[in-house]
Amino acid sequence: MSTVQVDTPGGSYPIHIAAGRLDSLAQSIPADATAIALVTNPTVYGHYGERATKALAQTGKRVLRIELPDGEAHKDWPTLNLVFDALLQNRLDRKAVIVALGGGVVGDMGGFAAACYMRGIRFVQVPTTLLAQVDSSVGGKTGINHPLGKNMIGAFYQPISVEIDTDVLATLPAREIAAGLAEVIKYGLIIDAEFFAWCEQHVEALRALDPQAITYAIQRSCELKAYVVSQDERESGLRAILNFGHTFGHAIEAGLGYGQWLHGEAVGCGMVQAAELSALTLGLPPASVARVRALTAAIGCPIQPPDLGTPRWIELMQVDKKTEGGQLRFVLLPEIGQARFEAAPLEALRRVLDQAAVAQV
Amino acid sequence: MSTVQVDTPGGSYPIHIAAGRLDSLAQSIPADATAIALVTNPTVYGHYGERATKALAQTGKRVLRIELPDGEAHKDWPTLNLVFDALLQNRLDRKAVIVALGGGVVGDMGGFAAACYMRGIRFVQVPTTLLAQVDSSVGGKTGINHPLGKNMIGAFYQPISVEIDTDVLATLPAREIAAGLAEVIKYGLIIDAEFFAWCEQHVEALRALDPQAITYAIQRSCELKAYVVSQDERESGLRAILNFGHTFGHAIEAGLGYGQWLHGEAVGCGMVQAAELSALTLGLPPASVARVRALTAAIGCPIQPPDLGTPRWIELMQVDKKTEGGQLRFVLLPEIGQARFEAAPLEALRRVLDQAAVAQV
Repeated sequence: MSTVQVDTPGGSYPIHIAAGRLDSLAQSIPADATAIALVTNPTVYGHYGERATKALAQTGKRVLRIELPDGEAHKDWPTLNLVFDALLQNRLDRKAVIVALGGGVVGDMGGFAAACYMRGIRFVQVPTTLLAQVDSSVGGKTGINHPLGKNMIGAFYQPISVEIDTDVLATLPAREIAAGLAEVIKYGLIIDAEFFAWCEQHVEALRALDPQAITYAIQRSCELKAYVVSQDERESGLRAILNFGHTFGHAIEAGLGYGQWLHGEAVGCGMVQAAELSALTLGLPPASVARVRALTAAIGCPIQPPDLGTPRWIELMQVDKKTEGGQLRFVLLPEIGQARFEAAPLEALRRVLDQAAVAQV
Repeated sequence: MSTVQVDTPGGSYPIHIAAGRLDSLAQSIPADATAIALVTNPTVYGHYGERATKALAQTGKRVLRIELPDGEAHKDWPTLNLVFDALLQNRLDRKAVIVALGGGVVGDMGGFAAACYMRGIRFVQVPTTLLAQVDSSVGGKTGINHPLGKNMIGAFYQPISVEIDTDVLATLPAREIAAGLAEVIKYGLIIDAEFFAWCEQHVEALRALDPQAITYAIQRSCELKAYVVSQDERESGLRAILNFGHTFGHAIEAGLGYGQWLHGEAVGCGMVQAAELSALTLGLPPASVARVRALTAAIGCPIQPPDLGTPRWIELMQVDKKTEGGQLRFVLLPEIGQARFEAAPLEALRRVLDQAAVAQV
């Protein structure tokens, strides 16, 4: 088993990565827990619910199952409230533990429910998608969407541990693997050029879920994200670079309606756009932009942005949390493996967005 | 101006107490704030909204007014969402500051909105009721009610400062003053016998809002609460004693329906019941119980609990956050000025509750 330790002012916790880790979930539950709430969705429960429940039952504690409807479209208040209803109806107290078994949506909602229930109870993340394993389970971001913007309501709240079972990737659709790999290569692009090159060399092994390759990719991604988060838990500085590709990506998701593209797909496409913007503003070499485009395509992500129309693109990006005093800011690359968070001239942004529309015609 | 400094792991902040403090609100807004959202209710806005707005406008920043419907009955998700709607519609970013101008409900909701908006923005508390000044504005408890329980959804989230203007108490109804004084004498009962005796001696001056007496009472209450909170921000130990009278009080509020009794009135009555339970379990002398009853009545609080019926009382108390593994726990007094948090025998509890019903007949 690999362990990555995450240290933040809000709490320290381990990430355990191992094939078959699901069967050892009892180890993640503190002895003084009064009950366990397993928050999941029907799809994940169908695959892994019984195994997880059996593992958790080894603690001898009550395991309450809470199934949420599947998908980003349900990452909202009414669905979150289903968790609160269940917790209160079953009288779980503040020493209960939430176990969030599922992808990013389940993790974000299970974590936010834990952050808010009785002003905060403990929770364990068990991410079952590649995207959640390498991204949303690390760093304590939890929350829900608002009709006017994604992830607008939430909390920074750390789990007591993250339990990653690499076996569960076997049941993921290919699109989900591609979406997860987009975040993997993102870490290389913003902070570790060597890891980016390693991904280029192992792209076929990664797509085929070769155990050794995928385990290393998850571990390295968690290490890199843990490093960034430990420097800056509350996103006042360095952490912002993790949003590379996300300002474009969030606009794609909001513009097409949540759930049309997977989050990772939108980020993958957004990374290509952010690389193009980096070329115009920071002089990222054309050959590097080509590498970003080629690897994004090779992992199976779309690289052609939808034609939302430039004014709509800009409007959607303005509501993003990364605006400050109304000015649009982006994570941009001076070169592969380095990132900066700064305002981009509107002129350059328009050129990137106009190009997208032209390409589509 | 008096200043009480509060230090917790989640943040340090000052409480400023002064007559006319409202006119100096601009001093509480950080220079890098991008906008100010004034969260209040129509009643408070009618009295103090223009003065507060004028004071905040001295910063030169945009002041957005967000009025929430008045009262505990609206301390719920749909009302909280009005704040999020307004913040997003007006594109306030994560460097905006919320100023919560009002009583406990506005403070709890404004604070919780600040805790959740974009995963946390800064907020300033401007409590305008005596209860909020001495209790809910200190310690970082924020949140909303759920149909199955009071304050079940929330966060520990500290303001950047608390601004207390003692002049605003002049427009409060007498019931609100009594409710606030209940929390004032609570601090004496749980931690400072001398302050309790001072309250007994100055009860008429306090009810009449004598400036010197009320200022000292607010300052001493904030000091005592700040001391407790600084020892234990997240209520794992000492902080629990602040809930003296609250387990009974919450049952009264939930049993009669929120808004029938003021929170402080319910707590006042609950303190008398908790003193009676303390006599049965910890040997609190009958003379001390009589002092609690006498002072609670003298400040103008009801001391006769409603006849909910013993089974309903117990059911309501079981959903309270202070249960652990299903066992009922109470803050109890071995003597005036000392408190312990412990389980009470059901037999003794029944005697207290049955007495209440008998007294009513």
